Amino acid sequence: MKKISMKNREEYTYYLFMYLKNKQKDLFREDFLNLHPTDQVEIFKQLSPDKRKKVYHYLTADEFAELFIGLRLHEQKQVFTELEDDFALKMLVELPADEITDFFSEIPEHISTFLLNKMEKTEAENIKLLLTYKHDSAGSLMTTEFIKVSPNASVSQVMEQLRLEGMDAETIYYIYVVDELDKLIGVVSLRELISNSSDVTVDQVMKEQVVSVSPTTDQEQVSTIIKDYNLLALPVITAEDKIIGIVTVDDVMDVMEEEITEDLGEFAAVKGALDLDVTSLTAAKKRLPWLILLLFIGMFTAGLIGVFEATLAEVAVLAVFIPLIADMAGNTGTQSLAVVVRGLALNKLDRKAVIRLIKREAVTGLILGIVCGVLVSVIALLIPQGSTVLGFIIGTSLFVTILFSTISGTVIPLIINKLKIDPAVASGPFITTINDILGLFIYFSIATSLLHYL
Amino acid sequence: MKKISMKNREEYTYYLFMYLKNKQKDLFREDFLNLHPTDQVEIFKQLSPDKRKKVYHYLTADEFAELFIGLRLHEQKQVFTELEDDFALKMLVELPADEITDFFSEIPEHISTFLLNKMEKTEAENIKLLLTYKHDSAGSLMTTEFIKVSPNASVSQVMEQLRLEGMDAETIYYIYVVDELDKLIGVVSLRELISNSSDVTVDQVMKEQVVSVSPTTDQEQVSTIIKDYNLLALPVITAEDKIIGIVTVDDVMDVMEEEITEDLGEFAAVKGALDLDVTSLTAAKKRLPWLILLLFIGMFTAGLIGVFEATLAEVAVLAVFIPLIADMAGNTGTQSLAVVVRGLALNKLDRKAVIRLIKREAVTGLILGIVCGVLVSVIALLIPQGSTVLGFIIGTSLFVTILFSTISGTVIPLIINKLKIDPAVASGPFITTINDILGLFIYFSIATSLLHYL
Repeated sequence: MKKISMKNREEYTYYLFMYLKNKQKDLFREDFLNLHPTDQVEIFKQLSPDKRKKVYHYLTADEFAELFIGLRLHEQKQVFTELEDDFALKMLVELPADEITDFFSEIPEHISTFLLNKMEKTEAENIKLLLTYKHDSAGSLMTTEFIKVSPNASVSQVMEQLRLEGMDAETIYYIYVVDELDKLIGVVSLRELISNSSDVTVDQVMKEQVVSVSPTTDQEQVSTIIKDYNLLALPVITAEDKIIGIVTVDDVMDVMEEEITEDLGEFAAVKGALDLDVTSLTAAKKRLPWLILLLFIGMFTAGLIGVFEATLAEVAVLAVFIPLIADMAGNTGTQSLAVVVRGLALNKLDRKAVIRLIKREAVTGLILGIVCGVLVSVIALLIPQGSTVLGFIIGTSLFVTILFSTISGTVIPLIINKLKIDPAVASGPFITTINDILGLFIYFSIATSLLHYL
Repeated sequence: MKKISMKNREEYTYYLFMYLKNKQKDLFREDFLNLHPTDQVEIFKQLSPDKRKKVYHYLTADEFAELFIGLRLHEQKQVFTELEDDFALKMLVELPADEITDFFSEIPEHISTFLLNKMEKTEAENIKLLLTYKHDSAGSLMTTEFIKVSPNASVSQVMEQLRLEGMDAETIYYIYVVDELDKLIGVVSLRELISNSSDVTVDQVMKEQVVSVSPTTDQEQVSTIIKDYNLLALPVITAEDKIIGIVTVDDVMDVMEEEITEDLGEFAAVKGALDLDVTSLTAAKKRLPWLILLLFIGMFTAGLIGVFEATLAEVAVLAVFIPLIADMAGNTGTQSLAVVVRGLALNKLDRKAVIRLIKREAVTGLILGIVCGVLVSVIALLIPQGSTVLGFIIGTSLFVTILFSTISGTVIPLIINKLKIDPAVASGPFITTINDILGLFIYFSIATSLLHYL
């Protein structure tokens, strides 16, 4: 059995390189086309422009389309410029509609318009329609290549239709049942179909309860539905129940990947700037707004400490523990925030769960506060400048700070979510900054009130 | 068409509740079984123990198994205690092997042993085997219900086999071809199969290049392969190429969800403590080790400032900017960290990409540093206690701090990853703490050297 292991992939790559070098078209085609498109892509990406040019000549437009789908958008753009016009156009029409749409939405409009004009009219109209949907919507994710049948078709008729249309459809495992107005009235899986005898009609076996979305549904919701209902594809219908496309599970896996990136970006206040392929200037531009905002919030912390300057001037050793108090406030707040962010992303925080969570976090904060507070006061006793009073001040401050930070790290993101404000505002750095202010205020208040004992 | 919308779900729920109350078994069965299992679960979870008991009587073990699969593990445990022994056992054997295994690995061993003894021998052996695989491995994810055929079976023979075995298999869309020793020698999709005439044999249409994993392969890798190759299922084979199970795409989507939680937990230093269902004590126990470690690292920061106590005693206003410098060091470091964490998770950071990324982040840090540095020195000029020298000190410190934090936020996680240390050590709070120390050292060094100008 030929399996794709690291070892024989290297061997494979070596031979394929040699075939290209020696212009052995047939040998190249045989070995290359035997590979899964994902592996074809990996090898293709390692080729020099010269060798890539040979690949364009050795493969048919149809075969190359399979590989092209596997490339990332910026690679597609690069490769597309290397293709001859004729070949490019031929390849393009072989792509599924959702792939063309993705590609077209990334290239300059005059080029996509030029290409659309060269394409077959119905195909072009189809793509123009898909291009109108918003980037993160079901409409932009869906493909229009799906199988639809009439309710009175028999199993054998459907099987015949699958034989004919099957290779062009994105999936043949779900067959959508429509009435004469293209209204979606049911769905039947191929599995159900083949377990029935050939003269049974579709309406006898179809499920009428079809889970569906509209073209404007957010992609995150689309992926949640597909995951929760264990679907391989989800139909997209208009307000009139007309089916216009399907979103398949493989598209949704890419969306999940994307959403993770988004969540992490929000968490770290780098929203939309996690891409590795952008320039320094672009990266800086995307991060600066957040940093400047955080800088201004940070000025409040500075102002707060300014208020206590008299205390600080008297007992300089207090400054030593500023970062410790601030860091621990940030750390405990971030931990609670992470719990809430996950709960919200998994849609598990209904009213009852929220109250339970706040209670739990409060008690957790209490425990964390007591342990860390006792620990730090012992340390404050042992350092050269230490004293019982200093130990008491630091210990008590840290205890109160951790308790409050745990609660604010839980409650603030929940409120922000409830108010439907951009959740990025609840990111780690924001929670950290707010908890810093809180923690230092507690610290200096206690220190100032106990100043004459120090 | 009956669609699941929020509105008629409420209506549905109302009627189902009434049927249960009025003991209208047939009406309940008709409406309830018409729902997708995922919706059945949603409604079932809202029932009182009394009403749940009725459901156990109204449904067959077979029908209830569908619903049981949709429950989360701790809900399954609860529900299982409510079932009568006979019904429970009957339901259990209806579950796919991977579901029973998940459930058994969560309940006390004496109960699972008791249940295994009551089950049919081959089934019990099968589950005992699955129970031996590690939690995060392909072996624990896989199911043993898949379709295998011999290479010389004809299309029509396979179709007949699908008709018979189809309903019990996890998927019938990939058919695995094995030799007489159960060695996996190829795969054919149902789509390819039905596009061929009925007398063609499997070996004529099967693909010999089968992507597969071993039972010990990590689940994160399993999900990457399924995503990258756009598979609906992935076969699990032994060292002798014997196929022992398959992992399906829906299992993998749950894994992706799990992995996101893990990543976020590591990022926020709450590894393994993002679960909403644990008690305060458990949550505190899991978070404390990280907090105590961070507390000790924080003592270094305190020690560092202690070194500069003389400077601080002379110019107390310097303390005012400690949190600002520390926060900005943390924030910029966290932003870079997020970029690296994503890149690593997506497997996009090879040697070349790493060098490019470090260069980019360094230039980005330079830009961010200049902008924030200039901004803060202007502010430092304008405040009551401000001066040109103070502005210069703060501005320069912030510039150097941001530059260094961006670089350390990029390089430290990469080194940690290279050294194969637990990546949680590179979490946000750790990077923040390290950058705090760095930033404050820069700040006080510059301030001390310019002290007599202040």
